[in-house]
Amino acid sequence: MTHERYEDSHLYRLRHSAAHLMAQAITEMYPGARLAIGPPIENGFYYDIDFPEPVSENELKGIENRMRELAKLNQPIERKVAASRDEAKRVIMEECTLGQGEAVAHYKLELLDMVPEGEEISFYDQQATDKKGELRRFIDLCRGPHIESTGEIKHFKLMSLAGAYWRGDVKQKQLTRIYGTAFETKEDLELYLHNLEEAKKRDHRKLGRELGLFMFSERVGQGLPLWLPKGAALRDALCDFLKEEQTRRGYEGVVTPNIANAKLYEKSGHLLTYRDKMFPFMEDEEKETFVLKPMNCPFHIEIYSSSLRSYRDLPVRLAEFGTVYRYEQSGELAGMLRVRGFTQDDAHLFVRPDQLLAEFKGVVDLMMAVLKKLGLNEYRVRVGTKEPSSDKYVGHDENWQLAESAIKQACDELGLEYEVSPGDAAFYGPKLDLIIKDALGREWQMGTVQVDYNLPERFDLEYIGEDSKPHRPIMIHRAPFGSLERMIGLLTEQYAGAFPFWLAPVQVAILPIADRHVEYAKHVAEQLQGFPSQVVAEDEQVAFATETVDSPGLRVSIDGSRQTLGKKIREAQRAKVPFMMIVGDNDAEAGTVGVRDREEGDLGAMSLTEFVARIRPML
Amino acid sequence: MTHERYEDSHLYRLRHSAAHLMAQAITEMYPGARLAIGPPIENGFYYDIDFPEPVSENELKGIENRMRELAKLNQPIERKVAASRDEAKRVIMEECTLGQGEAVAHYKLELLDMVPEGEEISFYDQQATDKKGELRRFIDLCRGPHIESTGEIKHFKLMSLAGAYWRGDVKQKQLTRIYGTAFETKEDLELYLHNLEEAKKRDHRKLGRELGLFMFSERVGQGLPLWLPKGAALRDALCDFLKEEQTRRGYEGVVTPNIANAKLYEKSGHLLTYRDKMFPFMEDEEKETFVLKPMNCPFHIEIYSSSLRSYRDLPVRLAEFGTVYRYEQSGELAGMLRVRGFTQDDAHLFVRPDQLLAEFKGVVDLMMAVLKKLGLNEYRVRVGTKEPSSDKYVGHDENWQLAESAIKQACDELGLEYEVSPGDAAFYGPKLDLIIKDALGREWQMGTVQVDYNLPERFDLEYIGEDSKPHRPIMIHRAPFGSLERMIGLLTEQYAGAFPFWLAPVQVAILPIADRHVEYAKHVAEQLQGFPSQVVAEDEQVAFATETVDSPGLRVSIDGSRQTLGKKIREAQRAKVPFMMIVGDNDAEAGTVGVRDREEGDLGAMSLTEFVARIRPML
Repeated sequence: MTHERYEDSHLYRLRHSAAHLMAQAITEMYPGARLAIGPPIENGFYYDIDFPEPVSENELKGIENRMRELAKLNQPIERKVAASRDEAKRVIMEECTLGQGEAVAHYKLELLDMVPEGEEISFYDQQATDKKGELRRFIDLCRGPHIESTGEIKHFKLMSLAGAYWRGDVKQKQLTRIYGTAFETKEDLELYLHNLEEAKKRDHRKLGRELGLFMFSERVGQGLPLWLPKGAALRDALCDFLKEEQTRRGYEGVVTPNIANAKLYEKSGHLLTYRDKMFPFMEDEEKETFVLKPMNCPFHIEIYSSSLRSYRDLPVRLAEFGTVYRYEQSGELAGMLRVRGFTQDDAHLFVRPDQLLAEFKGVVDLMMAVLKKLGLNEYRVRVGTKEPSSDKYVGHDENWQLAESAIKQACDELGLEYEVSPGDAAFYGPKLDLIIKDALGREWQMGTVQVDYNLPERFDLEYIGEDSKPHRPIMIHRAPFGSLERMIGLLTEQYAGAFPFWLAPVQVAILPIADRHVEYAKHVAEQLQGFPSQVVAEDEQVAFATETVDSPGLRVSIDGSRQTLGKKIREAQRAKVPFMMIVGDNDAEAGTVGVRDREEGDLGAMSLTEFVARIRPML
Repeated sequence: MTHERYEDSHLYRLRHSAAHLMAQAITEMYPGARLAIGPPIENGFYYDIDFPEPVSENELKGIENRMRELAKLNQPIERKVAASRDEAKRVIMEECTLGQGEAVAHYKLELLDMVPEGEEISFYDQQATDKKGELRRFIDLCRGPHIESTGEIKHFKLMSLAGAYWRGDVKQKQLTRIYGTAFETKEDLELYLHNLEEAKKRDHRKLGRELGLFMFSERVGQGLPLWLPKGAALRDALCDFLKEEQTRRGYEGVVTPNIANAKLYEKSGHLLTYRDKMFPFMEDEEKETFVLKPMNCPFHIEIYSSSLRSYRDLPVRLAEFGTVYRYEQSGELAGMLRVRGFTQDDAHLFVRPDQLLAEFKGVVDLMMAVLKKLGLNEYRVRVGTKEPSSDKYVGHDENWQLAESAIKQACDELGLEYEVSPGDAAFYGPKLDLIIKDALGREWQMGTVQVDYNLPERFDLEYIGEDSKPHRPIMIHRAPFGSLERMIGLLTEQYAGAFPFWLAPVQVAILPIADRHVEYAKHVAEQLQGFPSQVVAEDEQVAFATETVDSPGLRVSIDGSRQTLGKKIREAQRAKVPFMMIVGDNDAEAGTVGVRDREEGDLGAMSLTEFVARIRPML
């Protein structure tokens, strides 16, 4: 399967031209403004400009209006090639600056110097005469390509201002970067803007705080999340689900320390290849050095090699929710998506070569089961293979071929479409990545499966074959979620905090209408969660009908506060609880509950038996 | 309740006299041997001796025989007080050395110098004439007290040899320490020796290896256990049990990082009071310092103080299986009982003063429920209070009194006997410790509950009271297991690896008699564990009767190897699996299993329904 690359698309050219159109408007409106560079980017374009006076976000509307006026002139965009470097210099100084000369041409002249000798020097020129008969023109040093005419630029918006250093160098002057976006249709633009708004609302950092999922603390440190009770409940639900899937598939759990003597990572080679991502070392006076673990693999290898393995013992599948620490730069930290401490849903499979296909297939099948359970139904599969020309890879060619064909065959047999990405393999073996598309169309790199011939070699791993001789196993590294932190960040945004029923931290919020209904609410809670509630009632209580159900073991809350029912409902809505149960006099007497579904609204009164029958399939 | 202190007991004096008896035998047998000190200790006594020639373990039997001969002489033991220091010196040089003089008196003369001026200088003298008419005499510089006569020393044994520096100082001469033990009755001695043998068999380090529970790795580092699959299953079973108990009791789970910025522990005061137990710090170039967490409390405090708490929100009970690291000296590490990385079953309760009694009681009640489930029915409760004369404690006296009386009242209301141990409080508040007596009569310090007024003060914790004003909560720290490592070490020894059914890593081992019964074994396994087994059969399989049961979700193994049934049974016995199920032709045809109980032996053939009914109450 091949897709048109974004860089080759009409949309890419449209955005590039929109950047020029913005530059034309600015050149007209801000004499003396010096243009730097203005490329298309993912989701839009920008232009870096050195303004004579600072500009503010308020001025973007005016620039946008001027762009609309210029677009309506439908200026044809023409490519022109300079006959010589001197000619190009003249065009920049005179035509590009509309006669303002060298001072305004500053950055473009530097860019001209960067064009390699012998390369064609091209300009894009757009001009038209307006209603008043004035010539409006913009010509820019540019490789292109562009669209035919500015009339095509109809659906665009300037988004924001930011600072940007010339040539990305903090020692150079800081310029003003104006971001904009453009689309081919009004619908596309509106969807994009809507999704942007939606993404802000869904921002997992914001929702994480509002829903009480997790927090960061300055005293604990950047990138080190603390999971609050509701977030911990989410984690548990995810782990319990995966643990059960793994047990069914013959995985065995292990638990290993968060630190090790540096010797372990010296042996694994990580001290050489991974040191810059590791936390500062812990060195004691007697020169013993401990390191915080950035990866679980060497620990699982120590466990594999702690006993003699026979060919009949393989595959050995060791799984751990292993908390690792990586010293990401503080500027790169981003909520739960990039943190310094996180828990991988890690496992390592030690397999015989003849088991590689079946085990890889088993792993991919597990990942598909995970995606389905999580409701992540849009994804693509990328197979990372060797860059044929590079020599950064270790291991024998025949092993690489064996592994690559096992990966492809596994996908084929599971009916999975995949794209092959040469050069995306790890240095020690090929891999498969899952890239999820979320509800807003954004892509997220998720779980990964990697084949590894390197670590078994480094640690001299063995099993005794049917021939009674030692053989080398192959390792498979895999993490379907990637990490709990990243997955919960993603799911929070995917569901805007309204997690599926099986995953929701609180599944049912019971709202007694008045304090006198608290005892009945407690009876309901006990039936649903399987144990008595700790809430204390203060007033005299109404009598109630009791119904006993086989408890589905739900996570249940009772709002025993003295607030109005309206307020209680609004709080449960804000907490995005899947079901509310409103209980009052009639319910207590009849032994029913008034059920309100987060999506479907009021479902009316029902018995607990009816409710439990309704939710069982959702668990 | 008061117990007689060991130091005041007859047994203590008996052992002290046994040390003298051993010294007498040695003095007779090894002329030139120089005696140093010989006190009674827990479980026995020793004497440090500077022998003219090295002695070996083989010689202990001879010394023991000589002791028996001397004991039979029934020498009365007499206390004598020296009239002066000079007189004492003379007794040491002449009588104690049996005339060998200053060279042999060396250490005793040093000891004499250590007796403070003005203090009584006493000797214990034992003598009798033997059958041959020879006087046998031993007199030793000693504070005593002793028993009446050596005839009482009947049940004793010399145990081992070790090196020991004079006055415990490595710069002094290394002496030979001979350990022995003595009891008042033959039964006591035999029980002690039996228990010692039993303790060796039960050593959790040995069993941990044999049963595949955990391992240590030189590359990972000392005191950093790796949990193997069966040990991880044990951990999970313990955690699941406690989690459920805690959820029922209104605890909420949280998850916090294993590291923090040093600022956190500066604020908590641990950098001052606990630094020598902390791992070396991680310092980066920009002077940010991270520390490995030795305690979870400051993290839970950050969570408590992350939102405004009202008096109605309290108590807040935050629980975490929190993995902490403490830099124990390598000489102090001992299997799982003292490690450098371990997981506490930690929780912190933030309570109002008026809730302290009820919450403390709740915690103690939980601990009792834990002990009961674990089958640890012998224990004592120690309440650690302030040392009245010391000034090392922080906080107001009225708070201390409030807390101490809450602890005592909680015990009284729960009908728990306890001993008060002044000076055993933490510096920040009183506490309650549980001390378990195991199956061999050994005591283990286990879970603890502590009341803390200090950290709420340091972190300025608050809740808004009914009066709308800020108030200070009290914290309770508690860990019923203490740590998973220590608890599993203890349970391994308590049960000699034969864990109770609910806890056993493998609960049922299914043993197909031949390969043709593997499919039937898989049917049985699926019924018991609730999902299909991954074992692969190779031969043609027998037809079998199927029976469907409501799966109890057991941990089940199938021995699909080609070994004889006898070998399979021995392996399951060695693994101390609670139930074996032997399945052959008759079982497959009838849909039964041949059940063998670890304790009760063969239970005969039964249906799965019968088996499940039998084990349900044990879960």
